[in-house]
Amino acid sequence: MTMTMTMNLPLHIAPVDLSKSYRMINHGPTVLVSARHGGVDNVMAAAWCCALDFAPPKLTVVLDKATATRALIEQSGLFAIQVPTVAQLQLTREVGTRSLAHDAHKLASSGARLFGIDGFDLPFVEGCTGWLACRLIPEPHNQQAYDLFIGEIVGAWSDTRAFRDGHWHFEDADPALRSLHHVAGGNFYAIGQALPAVDAPA
Amino acid sequence: MTMTMTMNLPLHIAPVDLSKSYRMINHGPTVLVSARHGGVDNVMAAAWCCALDFAPPKLTVVLDKATATRALIEQSGLFAIQVPTVAQLQLTREVGTRSLAHDAHKLASSGARLFGIDGFDLPFVEGCTGWLACRLIPEPHNQQAYDLFIGEIVGAWSDTRAFRDGHWHFEDADPALRSLHHVAGGNFYAIGQALPAVDAPA
Repeated sequence: MTMTMTMNLPLHIAPVDLSKSYRMINHGPTVLVSARHGGVDNVMAAAWCCALDFAPPKLTVVLDKATATRALIEQSGLFAIQVPTVAQLQLTREVGTRSLAHDAHKLASSGARLFGIDGFDLPFVEGCTGWLACRLIPEPHNQQAYDLFIGEIVGAWSDTRAFRDGHWHFEDADPALRSLHHVAGGNFYAIGQALPAVDAPA
Repeated sequence: MTMTMTMNLPLHIAPVDLSKSYRMINHGPTVLVSARHGGVDNVMAAAWCCALDFAPPKLTVVLDKATATRALIEQSGLFAIQVPTVAQLQLTREVGTRSLAHDAHKLASSGARLFGIDGFDLPFVEGCTGWLACRLIPEPHNQQAYDLFIGEIVGAWSDTRAFRDGHWHFEDADPALRSLHHVAGGNFYAIGQALPAVDAPA
């Protein structure tokens, strides 16, 4: 069991218009997935999370049957997807490798600190740059055959130092706020240089 | 109709072990999707492509009902997923915004050049750093309700200057070979700095 404090939004955090919420994961970051049920909070890392639709905004996330977080989501029907930062590299690795089943103090051991957002009974991870509250859209065949879960995004917030006005601004933000992109075995890349494409003349 | 030449693998391209093939998209790049049916080849860009399983390796990709590439895939049951590079920024933007339905010369207009790989009746895009040949796993409900397609990866190849021994090596490759990560409206990021996490002592 983890204590969380529900409060007004912390400094730098502001709501994101749901129509722009897919952009927080459109560039393919590794995410943190969190959930709460029956007084238990948990957080895991997931590289396999992807936007699915614009309106209403939806996403997919792959959750192995061995994960404690999946069991919480199956019971609560709610989860949060969060975009961790370069500063959270070790935290992301640790919540992705430790299991609540084997370490009851996983969150504390991993250094994950949680906060609440009014109106959402979910544990949100401090220090991320994006938070998406999702309602599970039950699809039993996908969940059982593919470990594939579909969520509708029902709330979105960002750290405005990294994402504001519907866009990431990594190019003028602290490099410690860049997103993480996992390859395998603890090898990550940070997101890099901004590259605006120029539309060809019609 | 597009001419392709099937040949021995071009310079720098080598097969990737299927057990490592998910790593080519694990870091969330925007991809090119190509398909062939009835003498028609097409290529589109997709930011919503994600690994789904390790063994056998599978992936998901979201294909709007308006895309010509989707129709080819529904008919052939095959598609290729490719990882384009910084050098292909404009090509990626153009195949992602032009439609074969409105521009019969879309591939030529976009600068996409195709090649073949023996044993796979698919058009592969030159100049990418990764190629995944996929067999559609038909899931009519997902395809109709969510535009969500599942493929089993049945062949994988990489440009060994960027991906070899089962890992990306962007840190010592030409920056023009880095992967692209689309946010919205033609705004991309290149993948950035390598960040190996250190596992905590047990």
